[in-house]
Amino acid sequence: MRVLTFILVLATAGFSAARTAGEPKLRPADDDGDHRNLGAHPTPRQRVMEDGSLRALEDSAFWNARCQAELADQLAKTPIVSQAKNVIVFLGDGTGIATFTAARLLKGQRSGKYELEQSAWERFPFSSIIKTYNTNMQVTDSAASSTAYLNGVKGNQATIGVDANVLLGDCLAMNIQQFHTESVLKNFQDAGRSTGIVTTTRVTHASPAGNYAHTAERHWESDDDINDDNGDPDMCDDIAEQLVLGNTGSKIKVILGGGRKKFLPKDAVDPEGETSGRRDDGKNLIDTWINQKNLLGMNSYVWNRDQLFTVDTANTDYLLGLFDYGHMEYRVENDSSNPTLSEMTRVAIEVLQMDTKGFFLFVEGGLIDTAHHLNEHRSAVEEAFEFEKAVEVAVSMTDVQDTLIIVTADHSQPMTINGYPSRGSDILGLASVSDVDNMPFTTLMYTNGPGFRDQKNDLRPNPVDENYEDPHYVGQATVPMVESNHNGEDVILYARGPHAHLFTGIHENAYIPHAIRYAACVGSGLSFCSADA
Amino acid sequence: MRVLTFILVLATAGFSAARTAGEPKLRPADDDGDHRNLGAHPTPRQRVMEDGSLRALEDSAFWNARCQAELADQLAKTPIVSQAKNVIVFLGDGTGIATFTAARLLKGQRSGKYELEQSAWERFPFSSIIKTYNTNMQVTDSAASSTAYLNGVKGNQATIGVDANVLLGDCLAMNIQQFHTESVLKNFQDAGRSTGIVTTTRVTHASPAGNYAHTAERHWESDDDINDDNGDPDMCDDIAEQLVLGNTGSKIKVILGGGRKKFLPKDAVDPEGETSGRRDDGKNLIDTWINQKNLLGMNSYVWNRDQLFTVDTANTDYLLGLFDYGHMEYRVENDSSNPTLSEMTRVAIEVLQMDTKGFFLFVEGGLIDTAHHLNEHRSAVEEAFEFEKAVEVAVSMTDVQDTLIIVTADHSQPMTINGYPSRGSDILGLASVSDVDNMPFTTLMYTNGPGFRDQKNDLRPNPVDENYEDPHYVGQATVPMVESNHNGEDVILYARGPHAHLFTGIHENAYIPHAIRYAACVGSGLSFCSADA
Repeated sequence: MRVLTFILVLATAGFSAARTAGEPKLRPADDDGDHRNLGAHPTPRQRVMEDGSLRALEDSAFWNARCQAELADQLAKTPIVSQAKNVIVFLGDGTGIATFTAARLLKGQRSGKYELEQSAWERFPFSSIIKTYNTNMQVTDSAASSTAYLNGVKGNQATIGVDANVLLGDCLAMNIQQFHTESVLKNFQDAGRSTGIVTTTRVTHASPAGNYAHTAERHWESDDDINDDNGDPDMCDDIAEQLVLGNTGSKIKVILGGGRKKFLPKDAVDPEGETSGRRDDGKNLIDTWINQKNLLGMNSYVWNRDQLFTVDTANTDYLLGLFDYGHMEYRVENDSSNPTLSEMTRVAIEVLQMDTKGFFLFVEGGLIDTAHHLNEHRSAVEEAFEFEKAVEVAVSMTDVQDTLIIVTADHSQPMTINGYPSRGSDILGLASVSDVDNMPFTTLMYTNGPGFRDQKNDLRPNPVDENYEDPHYVGQATVPMVESNHNGEDVILYARGPHAHLFTGIHENAYIPHAIRYAACVGSGLSFCSADA
Repeated sequence: MRVLTFILVLATAGFSAARTAGEPKLRPADDDGDHRNLGAHPTPRQRVMEDGSLRALEDSAFWNARCQAELADQLAKTPIVSQAKNVIVFLGDGTGIATFTAARLLKGQRSGKYELEQSAWERFPFSSIIKTYNTNMQVTDSAASSTAYLNGVKGNQATIGVDANVLLGDCLAMNIQQFHTESVLKNFQDAGRSTGIVTTTRVTHASPAGNYAHTAERHWESDDDINDDNGDPDMCDDIAEQLVLGNTGSKIKVILGGGRKKFLPKDAVDPEGETSGRRDDGKNLIDTWINQKNLLGMNSYVWNRDQLFTVDTANTDYLLGLFDYGHMEYRVENDSSNPTLSEMTRVAIEVLQMDTKGFFLFVEGGLIDTAHHLNEHRSAVEEAFEFEKAVEVAVSMTDVQDTLIIVTADHSQPMTINGYPSRGSDILGLASVSDVDNMPFTTLMYTNGPGFRDQKNDLRPNPVDENYEDPHYVGQATVPMVESNHNGEDVILYARGPHAHLFTGIHENAYIPHAIRYAACVGSGLSFCSADA
């Protein structure tokens, strides 16, 4: 039997049926949306058949086979109804559905699979839509959101680990125990299991702090921050202090990320520069951490990538890695002193896996959000790409039968995927040309942020003249803001492992910890281990 | 036992910790995203406790109870593993995740439940993420998308019911049977079950046409359209002709929507005005439909809302309703001659439910997309709100045990939810004030479309000066386009009924018909009715 040789022909002569738009349409509705400008319609990829004729590569046979396989895979999905020994929560900060899509397309253009590529989480069997509003705002910040998706209770904007009784900046209220929420990380500690946090931001930033802190103000990361707000740091513990000395924070076995300045006194010199610490109280919380942990077991403090790689993970009880003075560097900087998120994730899992009773790990792709805030879509999607690699690492290191992995976001950002770019287009590049000002625009753009441009002669600037290929290119935006405001749309969640099937349909972000507790048999509330058979 | 009286206190004195943004931040990344402008932080709603103290309404007890109930509901979700007698596909054209969220918030502000409100589809137990790219474009139009989500095969941009071998406008190729795809609607007909289509657009528009047409060009809705493109309508049947005379179209029992002009000859006078039809070939396809159906059974042709209400649905074999010359009117017009989408849906289901063997119904909220194309976010979200009511009607009229209902979108639109509006804010109103130009901006905005504004003195116009409360207000946009381009982000899908659990995780849009065929035991490929027990 002859084997058909399929030769892929990437037709370069674009089908030139390009349509030009007519006059702006008027009501009635009938004449709206005539869609006369749908892109240049390049010819799809083709293969040469046995008889020499050309057929589209992705014809009916291709899609029918592919979708039947997809259906067979779906039918084979079996809920794993057993206790989750380990739980890993991957949090893409500011990673709305458009950023998830863009990350897949970037992976695809680098792997050569383009749109047919899958992100690691797209092989997870279950997914959910997640609602993110908090107790006082329709559009949440990362602090209130972390209270919800890590503690199971929604709180007020910019507060962490406290319920709605604690208003922003209310130091007195934040010390009332009954207003504190309890994180899943703490639930794991209480059950005698190991815990860790990994992030590309300062480890005292809003998202990771949701695991261990209780504060009326997300910006109170050091005592200096509280003093700046005319608060009293003796009354209200700052977040770094809560991490090192707090009931929950001090028990965390693995802490990897940035943010040394929140731990160091002003007379300390940071190892990577001339800059000093930011603590007014003279405390060196890194030394405190080392001294404490010396009493408890084997520990390592590391502050650069090389040191991280020398950690003997099989013989480490406690690991603190603070790889930058502030947030870690963006991936597009290729800073060799910073480990990547996937490298940190690997080390964290290696250490935590030594606990035979199981572990909880929080991993944040935190700079996706900070890049978006600057409207730097290239940098943001590169961060999301790195986030994806970290998920891949976790999947490869764990057993689906005993490890629940969740990938989700705390909120979206106002970035969209524009134009009608053809298949295989660079997701970080240009989409099309405006049929009004006849200038190109980038595929990724924002509705608010620093990317707002002053016009010249009623024209927006041309992105080609603006060096849109710069990794820190600031995408164009509709409304000027010093930094972008978030996007209040629902976000998405992917899950695999024991009780991943608790994530279907739509859920509140505060539902997530309740489902995790059930699956892992920790904390209070419904639990798989005490459920009726 | 005393009953606690909870008095809701909506604190109006906003907590005035409003922060002002500092200078734009510079690298290193550390100083990005300091989030110093997170909105005005109004005090959350409170209740008066027995002792006279105030407590937040939505405190830990509130969320823990609510999320435990949500978990109990989730644990009670049971896949319905039986044949789907009926299938209803609800398609929100251009309805990305942000539009779904906005529709919920609009429903909530009208019901008084605000953010705690649920859309009809949010009570569906299963959901999926859907990938929408087609065979030649990263960002799809509605035509190629309808080929995929109704036929199970992706095709080229702007083609319908044909695979990737048919290039845009290729009349010869579109007549080659082997390049035709087969819709789920046709599968139902072949199985001897009833079918129907309902839309607010012309019934010959791209989305509904995916059920019955095979064409190389979505705009070929009448022979006149083909002549305009210098094509030969004798060679290539237009979409209206395929609907009335085609193998599949002629068997559809219920057809409700707009678009009379594509059915009427130029010498016919439309009943609602002076306008004539648009057919060059002199055919009156409405008369043709009536004459044909007279031979087959009881039928009704109606062209306004009053007539629709007089239809004896228990004694109607065929029903054609064309309620407008072109697309139907936007809901914000309150045109009393147009039935609403939910009214059309009710009548369609009543007629189709007479078939004891079951039915397939396609219902499109088609003007969500056309309003978005004009950047008219108010009108778009009102259309989505009406779409939601239609889903509610279908849920109330059908049995979850035998009817699979799917709600999804064909693609997104570049609209986002901006700013940090407080809880209870009008989703169609203003979000916040820019910390750069000190002018307010609307919560909903676009990245591309006619909403681009010329600046005066490097300032965008103030929406307050622009009458942003007009139902047809054009939202601001980043890049000018005659009409908006779509958004290439993934979309979402909700499902209830038999085999709704086939929709979890992420799927290709072309997967949807394969799952429907399996559930309903129609067409080829894997089928529940022939699956191993």
